[in-house]
Amino acid sequence: MDTARLDQARAALRRHGVDALLVGPSADLRYLVGYHALPLERLTLLVVPAEGDPLLIVPALEEPRARDSGADQLVTLTSFTETEDPVALVVEHLEAADATARLAVQDRLWTAFTLALQGAIPAAAWVPGSSIMRELRLVKSSQEIRALREVGAAIDAVHAQVPGLLRVGRTEAEVGRDISELILREHDEVNFVIVASGPNGASPHHETGGRRLEQGDAVVVDIGGTRAGYCSDMTRNYVVGEPPGGYAELHRVLEEAQDAAVAAVAPGVAAGVIDRVAREHIADAGYGEYFVHRTGHGIGVEEHEEPWIVEGNDLVLEPGMAFSVEPGIYVPDRYGARIEDIVVVTDDGVERLNLRPREVLVAG
Amino acid sequence: MDTARLDQARAALRRHGVDALLVGPSADLRYLVGYHALPLERLTLLVVPAEGDPLLIVPALEEPRARDSGADQLVTLTSFTETEDPVALVVEHLEAADATARLAVQDRLWTAFTLALQGAIPAAAWVPGSSIMRELRLVKSSQEIRALREVGAAIDAVHAQVPGLLRVGRTEAEVGRDISELILREHDEVNFVIVASGPNGASPHHETGGRRLEQGDAVVVDIGGTRAGYCSDMTRNYVVGEPPGGYAELHRVLEEAQDAAVAAVAPGVAAGVIDRVAREHIADAGYGEYFVHRTGHGIGVEEHEEPWIVEGNDLVLEPGMAFSVEPGIYVPDRYGARIEDIVVVTDDGVERLNLRPREVLVAG
Repeated sequence: MDTARLDQARAALRRHGVDALLVGPSADLRYLVGYHALPLERLTLLVVPAEGDPLLIVPALEEPRARDSGADQLVTLTSFTETEDPVALVVEHLEAADATARLAVQDRLWTAFTLALQGAIPAAAWVPGSSIMRELRLVKSSQEIRALREVGAAIDAVHAQVPGLLRVGRTEAEVGRDISELILREHDEVNFVIVASGPNGASPHHETGGRRLEQGDAVVVDIGGTRAGYCSDMTRNYVVGEPPGGYAELHRVLEEAQDAAVAAVAPGVAAGVIDRVAREHIADAGYGEYFVHRTGHGIGVEEHEEPWIVEGNDLVLEPGMAFSVEPGIYVPDRYGARIEDIVVVTDDGVERLNLRPREVLVAG
Repeated sequence: MDTARLDQARAALRRHGVDALLVGPSADLRYLVGYHALPLERLTLLVVPAEGDPLLIVPALEEPRARDSGADQLVTLTSFTETEDPVALVVEHLEAADATARLAVQDRLWTAFTLALQGAIPAAAWVPGSSIMRELRLVKSSQEIRALREVGAAIDAVHAQVPGLLRVGRTEAEVGRDISELILREHDEVNFVIVASGPNGASPHHETGGRRLEQGDAVVVDIGGTRAGYCSDMTRNYVVGEPPGGYAELHRVLEEAQDAAVAAVAPGVAAGVIDRVAREHIADAGYGEYFVHRTGHGIGVEEHEEPWIVEGNDLVLEPGMAFSVEPGIYVPDRYGARIEDIVVVTDDGVERLNLRPREVLVAG
């Protein structure tokens, strides 16, 4: 890792007239300096001034882990003991911390830390860190796209084994544990496993639980992990035996909607248009009221990041942006279905990073 | 679950002259209404006004999970769609959201949400949510102490099986995976597993890794999980074969220090005194420079919470407070040791919730 991303962050600060970026334990910290910090009640904070040198402040206890990450090769590292105040170290490093300061704080920093910083620099104006970081992270480098392609193939390989796990009488939780093990064979971490069977499929974020699979169940399987720092996220639908009444038709409409939305992806198209294409197709087929969420989200070092593929988002797609296209149809108390692939915008269109068949597969 | 804790929170708000408490996905949310919300880019927020009714705002996608939690039996639930603004719902519910408002925000709410709230209610004063919640959570009820006793016994049972896992040639990571499985037999979730062998033991937050155990290694094993909503956290030290030179003496000093610190726990004693007792004993034996962290932290629905057992903390202990007592001695490049038990303050002294032997055990 080198200082290129830090340099880009400082250039973005200057363009936006922001004096410094403050980054706690987060994907942004990993992205900028490669340090996977634990979120703790003791502050870890990377201070990146628009002018001047970055400083990484860590609790003394975490200093060995911080040095192991190699972050100290990129920025100056300093630590504080159990009775020292890290906020004072931040203020000291921020020469611009006066009445005119504009400071960006990483989106997920715990509010308790932000309130302490605001108390110590009361006259500053505060803006969300994503206003700076989004420019860096929205468009992926060719190296990042390669990492996303590899983790996409990894989750493809897991889905290939899912049909064999879905057998009548097994609980969602049992299936989920098996899937977690398969994810770990292809990834460094399991991010989430949703196995939503029968009527549970009608809840897009169903918590995998004790329901046992029955003959004729439709099952939504939405899974993801992290490999070499980049995330996968992929949904397919399976049926145990014969599909329930009306499900085959619903799934056909969903496939067409997902295909149409993916086909619409190209440089110069607004993100909201991709959502509209999927939504109109589903509405035209009479299922409009059952598509209750946005069509997708960006992905990279985080599972969910910009661009948001949502109605009204006029962000213009550029080559290198990567996101999910995942329309769903949810019929309360009966069943649900969602088809999700990660795609990346290319110079002249789109590349799918998940390649498994999208039709409903018979399991068991 | 009933509304008793919400009533206590509102009473605390009135005592502190704070108009409302805003609680995102967190242990506080579980504590108040039993809802284990996912931390998402879509806001989930419980609004608890000092006067008036609480309101739980969730993304439409999460509404089924929120209802499954039963939280809607305690508070009014409302949801917003992908194109609605949840911050507007917060402002609407806060009748006191004027220039005189004082608002408490849960400590771990993502800063991006807090900045959006601050932007929408610019004249309000903002205080950390812990200023309200600490009063509720610091002193455990008899039911909570029972839960901590049970999860303490659960992690005792895991440590009882650790010696059999520590064999020459196995990696820390292999041992860690076995320990995770044992934790899951006795808990609902694994919170963390630290296996720090040989020189790695000198880093208190060592990341369990690829180092293979060698004859004569000292090994620090610090592990914890969650069972029925309450956390365990316990550290013991093991040696593979004969202890390395000087280690037996160091460990004897540490045992005495931990015993002395636990014996000092009683109602009316300041938290900082417990730290001083452990620290002085270790310093008197000549190891002072090697005890680099505070002596302990509170525990309950979170692994780390108040009271902090740290130098200078003049918080007076009361019956029902629960925390770790975990002095450590870390000799760089050689080895480390830490002994950690959870204790609870009783009416006339202290009860240990971990009962395994504290001496160094020979493994392998």
